[in-house]
Amino acid sequence: MRATVLVRPKEGILDPQGQAVESSLRQLGFPVDDARVGRVIDLEIDAKDADAARAEVELMCERLLANPLIESYEIDVGDDA
Amino acid sequence: MRATVLVRPKEGILDPQGQAVESSLRQLGFPVDDARVGRVIDLEIDAKDADAARAEVELMCERLLANPLIESYEIDVGDDA
Repeated sequence: MRATVLVRPKEGILDPQGQAVESSLRQLGFPVDDARVGRVIDLEIDAKDADAARAEVELMCERLLANPLIESYEIDVGDDA
Repeated sequence: MRATVLVRPKEGILDPQGQAVESSLRQLGFPVDDARVGRVIDLEIDAKDADAARAEVELMCERLLANPLIESYEIDVGDDA
């Protein structure tokens, strides 16, 4: 089963990569007010159904994929995720 | 207007970060068959409507946000994007 995880820097947490992107886009002339950069992780996992897959991915986020102190995550599960 | 861009390594392109994530997840005992890692970029831009915003973000992707040789991108525009 496919699952997609979006990991983003939390509100208020410094995001140097986002700042660099914002400043580069502005230098190119784009009307950008803010940019934040995070990660998208696409997973293919063995799970009997979507609920089991989501629970599994939630654990993966807590243990490896995200740093809960400074990042938030969002999980999307499904064959078309 | 808010826009979200997902930038992913193209099919068939080597993704060392994804391989590292996959192998770490397996070592932790998770039943993972595949993992690919890309970037999520959240933008706040000045644009008169969603179509204008999408066109603008498309240009940003071509010029800065993605490397079209090895990455594909997906744009989502809207206040709730």
